[in-house]
Amino acid sequence: MKRISDIDEMIRTCAAIRSEGKSIGLVPTMGALHDGHRSLLKIARGRCDILVTSIFVNPSQFGPNEDLAKYPRQIGKDCALCEAEGVDIVFMPLPNEMYVEDYSTWIKVDDVSAPLEGERRPGHFIGVATVVLKFFNIVTPNFAVFGQKDAQQLAVIRRMVRDLNVPVEIIAAPIVREEDGLAMSSRNIYLSTSERKSAPAIFRGLRAASRLFANGEFDASILCRRVRHELSSFEKLAIEYVSLADSLTMREQVNAGDGSLISIAVRTPESGTRLIDNVILGEIK
Amino acid sequence: MKRISDIDEMIRTCAAIRSEGKSIGLVPTMGALHDGHRSLLKIARGRCDILVTSIFVNPSQFGPNEDLAKYPRQIGKDCALCEAEGVDIVFMPLPNEMYVEDYSTWIKVDDVSAPLEGERRPGHFIGVATVVLKFFNIVTPNFAVFGQKDAQQLAVIRRMVRDLNVPVEIIAAPIVREEDGLAMSSRNIYLSTSERKSAPAIFRGLRAASRLFANGEFDASILCRRVRHELSSFEKLAIEYVSLADSLTMREQVNAGDGSLISIAVRTPESGTRLIDNVILGEIK
Repeated sequence: MKRISDIDEMIRTCAAIRSEGKSIGLVPTMGALHDGHRSLLKIARGRCDILVTSIFVNPSQFGPNEDLAKYPRQIGKDCALCEAEGVDIVFMPLPNEMYVEDYSTWIKVDDVSAPLEGERRPGHFIGVATVVLKFFNIVTPNFAVFGQKDAQQLAVIRRMVRDLNVPVEIIAAPIVREEDGLAMSSRNIYLSTSERKSAPAIFRGLRAASRLFANGEFDASILCRRVRHELSSFEKLAIEYVSLADSLTMREQVNAGDGSLISIAVRTPESGTRLIDNVILGEIK
Repeated sequence: MKRISDIDEMIRTCAAIRSEGKSIGLVPTMGALHDGHRSLLKIARGRCDILVTSIFVNPSQFGPNEDLAKYPRQIGKDCALCEAEGVDIVFMPLPNEMYVEDYSTWIKVDDVSAPLEGERRPGHFIGVATVVLKFFNIVTPNFAVFGQKDAQQLAVIRRMVRDLNVPVEIIAAPIVREEDGLAMSSRNIYLSTSERKSAPAIFRGLRAASRLFANGEFDASILCRRVRHELSSFEKLAIEYVSLADSLTMREQVNAGDGSLISIAVRTPESGTRLIDNVILGEIK
């Protein structure tokens, strides 16, 4: 497994791979890899000649009051996991080389990035779209795999790829959960013991709403209320939103249908950890 | 020579060319081709296996009060010129396929796009950067040729390409002028007879300033005043700006040096035509 930090070396390396007619699969990450990432790597590994993963804690997608500085970094452990999953190249660029001093170009995806996360994290999706497009241009992958856990991110990237005619296939990977249902996230390590114990209520709520839908309940307000109800036992939890929206456009829906997305963001009472989760209706019976 | 309008067909065609190991050169245009464009095509023709030119009057780079509707369109004549210059593929996409109904992704290049044209034509460079990136993704050229006449556009595209790690080489082509010095432009046909007669004063001013510089005058205000002085005989001409700036950053300079750009925008008194022109100091003796 190669480790590359230099952007120009990465460009040359990937150009050489493509000129040999080999396919490249990309799994972009911010490191702090867990079994969720592992599943993305497995999906990608089966579909390409050369598997590239990027590890880059992208400063431009963090707001001024967010957790950029304390975001978990564990590069040695991450590389071991990548090696075990058959990654060919780990790309770890430096922030000041990704964003040079007079860096000035930003991708803005209107509409789909406006509500939910976009509303709570101004500029977040500009940072995400921009860094993803940079990685696509550097790595020139045939496809890239993104986790369904960041459902709106996925919708934003799909829209960007469609609008800008980016020649990269976008593959969504299902959410991977702990045994008790908590969606895997690098931020779960922030949780206090008692928060960790209560956190599975998030997925219990999403699953309960999903089952209501499977039994014929289409009313968005009833389905969202069902999610909130399950969280009432999670004391002092701040619910930022429970949303039922079209999973491609992220527009709120009054009536749910197959492909509707229920998504939720909460902030835990003790550690102040922000957790997100979601479920696509029709996928859980 | 092939003519292609369908975006997917263009993507497939260019992917096939690249997979054969052939190089692609791109000359993006808005049509109404003249000898300026011809010079871009000649430069590109000498450097690639397959020469592509796009003809697309890009609606997103025109402001609401600009000349989108009346911009000259002459597709038959343009294709004949392309064929004569050895173009292999003319790409002429439809506006509603380049910008689908819920199109939402825009490239914003801060800083370099802010002054001069950016100030007078809000949103113009967002439209330019976005459509150019779309063409790069569709055509996947090894290089693209842009005219030096749109000097700030060139700076914006260079910055975008650098920032987003776009794998396309940007080549600048010198301004082509009529015998009397007027820079060639598709908009010159808007000029009245008397405006056309006075218009060469623009280049006379730029050339005079350039000669002052060659003779040791570095003071930006004196150099710009020299340009304005030459235009005093062009009655009722509205000068939007005369600028001396760094040609890469477009930042105004107090003292000129090699590589400084003097640029000018005027609006003619009768037809209200907006003309731009520029000179890079040190290039004219």
